[in-house]
Amino acid sequence: MSFQLHEGFTVLERTPATLRAMLGGLSDTWIQTNEGPDTFSAFDNVGHLIHGERTDWIPRARIILDQGANRRFEKYDRFAQIRESQGKNLGQLLDEFAQLRAENLDTLRSWNLSDRELALQGEHPELGAVSLRQLLATWVAHDLGHIAQTARVMAKQYREDIGPWRAYLPIMDR
Amino acid sequence: MSFQLHEGFTVLERTPATLRAMLGGLSDTWIQTNEGPDTFSAFDNVGHLIHGERTDWIPRARIILDQGANRRFEKYDRFAQIRESQGKNLGQLLDEFAQLRAENLDTLRSWNLSDRELALQGEHPELGAVSLRQLLATWVAHDLGHIAQTARVMAKQYREDIGPWRAYLPIMDR
Repeated sequence: MSFQLHEGFTVLERTPATLRAMLGGLSDTWIQTNEGPDTFSAFDNVGHLIHGERTDWIPRARIILDQGANRRFEKYDRFAQIRESQGKNLGQLLDEFAQLRAENLDTLRSWNLSDRELALQGEHPELGAVSLRQLLATWVAHDLGHIAQTARVMAKQYREDIGPWRAYLPIMDR
Repeated sequence: MSFQLHEGFTVLERTPATLRAMLGGLSDTWIQTNEGPDTFSAFDNVGHLIHGERTDWIPRARIILDQGANRRFEKYDRFAQIRESQGKNLGQLLDEFAQLRAENLDTLRSWNLSDRELALQGEHPELGAVSLRQLLATWVAHDLGHIAQTARVMAKQYREDIGPWRAYLPIMDR
């Protein structure tokens, strides 16, 4: 399968409900434990996705669509959620993510993007020239990556508890 | 965190809704593509979880709790779902999984397991002696592993489409 906007859209619109079903109401032991220094807990994953809604996907798409003189994206802060999630609980983050995502998908839908527009390029500060099509495909893949990462950090809490089954569960040692 | 039955339970009861939120209504291109020969599509992952509800977790727990002369588990067929899912659509599988999981969690709850019972052992055909506690912890971790695997097989469909971002998304090359 290669990227089709309407297919990618169907994944983007499901992610808030997926994370709510997976995490809503779980205890802090499940959602606040991470995989070690500079890694994300389930809670951090949701905060990170919120930061992306605010600063990454749609703002970068606008830079590309504007085709101004400076098409260079702002750097992305992978740890912004440590600051931005402070004082919030997971329920608040899940609500915030769902609302921002819905607004951003409304924007994306309203653009009614053509193939010509999807081929327009911006400049990633480290990766160089990237197209709008690549940016939107990455938005989808990034969601799925963080769903997988959330499941992994939770699974690893039972790394010792599963005893010899660890040999059959590669997720424990990733 | 080390395994606590009530904490593990909260994850087990969420998995059907998580998969429904993630996959329900998606096109066949999303749910039927796998990662190559002898790998699972999203559809296969749900079928595999159904097979586990029928033949693995609760049946093995019964063998342990019975403490009969033969405590050796049946071998688990990792590819049973290819046969068992035939002619079914994803909506049917999601319903079937939700129903079986709810029944199995009713059974688990009704046992009101003590620490003494959680320490009882059975014999895995390949791994040898395993405790009921390890079996139940593995049930939880196995769910999370298949949520991660489902997200990964979907993400990989965009491996080429994301262009240079592939360098930032390790899920693409796992």
